Amino acid sequence: MIAATAELLTVAQADLTQPEIYQRVVENGSLNLSFWANIALAGLSILLFVYMGRNVTDSRAQLIFVSTLMVPLVSISSYLGLASGLTISFLEMPSGHALAGEAVLTMWGRYLTWALSTPMILLALGLLAGSNLTKLFTAIVMDIGMCITGLAAALTTSSYALRWFWYLISCAFFVAVLYVLLVEWPEDAEVAGTTEIFSTLKTLTVVLWFGYPIFWALGAEGFAVIGVATTSWAYSLLDIGAKYAFAYLLLRWVAAHEGTIGDLTTSRTGSAAAVDD
Amino acid sequence: MIAATAELLTVAQADLTQPEIYQRVVENGSLNLSFWANIALAGLSILLFVYMGRNVTDSRAQLIFVSTLMVPLVSISSYLGLASGLTISFLEMPSGHALAGEAVLTMWGRYLTWALSTPMILLALGLLAGSNLTKLFTAIVMDIGMCITGLAAALTTSSYALRWFWYLISCAFFVAVLYVLLVEWPEDAEVAGTTEIFSTLKTLTVVLWFGYPIFWALGAEGFAVIGVATTSWAYSLLDIGAKYAFAYLLLRWVAAHEGTIGDLTTSRTGSAAAVDD
Amino acid sequence: MIAATAELLTVAQADLTQPEIYQRVVENGSLNLSFWANIALAGLSILLFVYMGRNVTDSRAQLIFVSTLMVPLVSISSYLGLASGLTISFLEMPSGHALAGEAVLTMWGRYLTWALSTPMILLALGLLAGSNLTKLFTAIVMDIGMCITGLAAALTTSSYALRWFWYLISCAFFVAVLYVLLVEWPEDAEVAGTTEIFSTLKTLTVVLWFGYPIFWALGAEGFAVIGVATTSWAYSLLDIGAKYAFAYLLLRWVAAHEGTIGDLTTSRTGSAAAVDD
Repeated sequence: MIAATAELLTVAQADLTQPEIYQRVVENGSLNLSFWANIALAGLSILLFVYMGRNVTDSRAQLIFVSTLMVPLVSISSYLGLASGLTISFLEMPSGHALAGEAVLTMWGRYLTWALSTPMILLALGLLAGSNLTKLFTAIVMDIGMCITGLAAALTTSSYALRWFWYLISCAFFVAVLYVLLVEWPEDAEVAGTTEIFSTLKTLTVVLWFGYPIFWALGAEGFAVIGVATTSWAYSLLDIGAKYAFAYLLLRWVAAHEGTIGDLTTSRTGSAAAVDD
Repeated sequence: MIAATAELLTVAQADLTQPEIYQRVVENGSLNLSFWANIALAGLSILLFVYMGRNVTDSRAQLIFVSTLMVPLVSISSYLGLASGLTISFLEMPSGHALAGEAVLTMWGRYLTWALSTPMILLALGLLAGSNLTKLFTAIVMDIGMCITGLAAALTTSSYALRWFWYLISCAFFVAVLYVLLVEWPEDAEVAGTTEIFSTLKTLTVVLWFGYPIFWALGAEGFAVIGVATTSWAYSLLDIGAKYAFAYLLLRWVAAHEGTIGDLTTSRTGSAAAVDD
Repeated sequence: MIAATAELLTVAQADLTQPEIYQRVVENGSLNLSFWANIALAGLSILLFVYMGRNVTDSRAQLIFVSTLMVPLVSISSYLGLASGLTISFLEMPSGHALAGEAVLTMWGRYLTWALSTPMILLALGLLAGSNLTKLFTAIVMDIGMCITGLAAALTTSSYALRWFWYLISCAFFVAVLYVLLVEWPEDAEVAGTTEIFSTLKTLTVVLWFGYPIFWALGAEGFAVIGVATTSWAYSLLDIGAKYAFAYLLLRWVAAHEGTIGDLTTSRTGSAAAVDD
């Protein structure tokens, strides 16, 4: 039980300073490693991706490249924020929560930076599928809504019920994102001739993205059935798949099929017209 | 006098925790209802609008639909932030203010989320009017400037004069938004053949949007001539008109006149050219 | 030595209220003037620029005008945030820092608002150069990354080494911005026939933008070899050159060469096609 509490990283009072929070992170080897492993992987990904994209010249393929490259760039910043204690707080949980009255380590920086990295993933996917502006706008705006309300859920300490109300709103936004990913873009990708790679990346994204709300619910933010370090590792591993592996597969394909994407640009004048405005 | 102070929701010291702020909100039935009434209305609006837009297929009409749908989606999140005490603070007013030295309940979350919802309103209006990218950009960027400086005005507790300096800057941004709404877009709407509906929505928007700075000035943020709960109700009622009623009128028209908007897309190739870059 | 400490604006404890911070700013005449001088200059710039742009009718030239006009509009808001103490904090520096253990005045609002003003500068420059959407997106997204990680560097008080890690990431983003400014856009400007003015503004921008990371490193945020008021003046003077003088030169040229920009719009249909999507 003491071990469990230690693993949950709770403290008696909520208002720790940033250096004190940093100290707790450093003392918890597993938690700290879940951050630094991703800083290292994001760093290597950035170098690899810049190298992979060195010869891409088509403007549309370049746009996919840059938005994909932004994913590990945001990620390294996100994990540095966590590792330094800048975007972590100890928040006292409300009554009704399994850890009510204890101040629990909350990695709110994750939710904040997802609002910056996940739109880049959707932008790259949408461009790959040959999406029009309306669908890109829908996916990205709903996605940002999902991340910000997830952040609000994590930061709400006044009422346990309201935490889950936020969670439901966030899930509603997620449904809208899923609709574009699973219904709209597959049709577009067929027209664009990118079905095979789009289908792989869509499946990878949808399956892994389901992991985030699940671990939110299981972790200290929700039912607190798993500890903080375990939750952090779950998120870190999901990020490795949904961000770096995703980006690698996408960029490898783009580098090899630049022509397909270039054709896309010129062949879609009709549907592009709807995008001009 | 005691009643007035209670209505103004002031406390002796400024640094309440989120659960303490939540407690104050729950204890003030009128204030709490001004939040939950809008959460309920926003929720119903979302369901109604999704239903109304189920058959819209034109890409431009869909874009108007999605941006309009975002308005109650941001709104429900905004009011949940207020109702949970997450985006409310008690701030000690500077000398010169009618309540100088007292910590007054400040609903700063309203100003923050307006920076997300009002651009969606302007995007929908601009698309309806057949605006080019320059005017859309102008209206939206100036609008965001208006909301953020309004937020800064509410959060400045160091000097009464500087609160009003922020207010003036926010009003200057508002003038730029009004210019696009009253001078530029009516001309575009005439060319686009959407004058009638645009004119109705423009009038609704301009008249109601004037209400916000007026109640900011009258409420506890400004001259404090009306109480916090009354100000909150004023904002909540303005939101009902400027957000849900506005969105309903717009979406009803779009659902019935999808063709007009579709024509707009193809007929404007000339002016659209300026938008490409 | 006492004078130096006073100039560095350190205090014994970190948690000052906004009115207390404001008091420190007002008491330091030099620091306060470095803010108010820019509020005055930004205000005059806004009036001058609105006057200069009164006759511009081409949609693309107008877009350059509005984005340039946003620069002093964000700037006046930024400096009002600093002058009011709203966006300033006293942060206790970590061990290893020259002022370790002392709470140093940190003007974090500068880094936050640069994330809003510098994209406007790059948007105007990119439009002037006839950039495609990919390059504009790259420059702006990398620029925002630079500003936000610079902000994180300033706010990190848990570890001296991690402050400089942030600084390195911020510089990496800066390299990407420089690449677009120095390699990509000059070629585009040649095609667009705007080489002369672009070249002037590019040199002005690149030279002055190098000043910001240099003064970050020299100031209290970094090695603390110069005082807070001096650093503030350095930033304020850089802003005068990189923002108001830059904007004046750009707008004077646009007002006089509206035709060149208008031609740009219609002559680039080919490359614009890649931008539609």
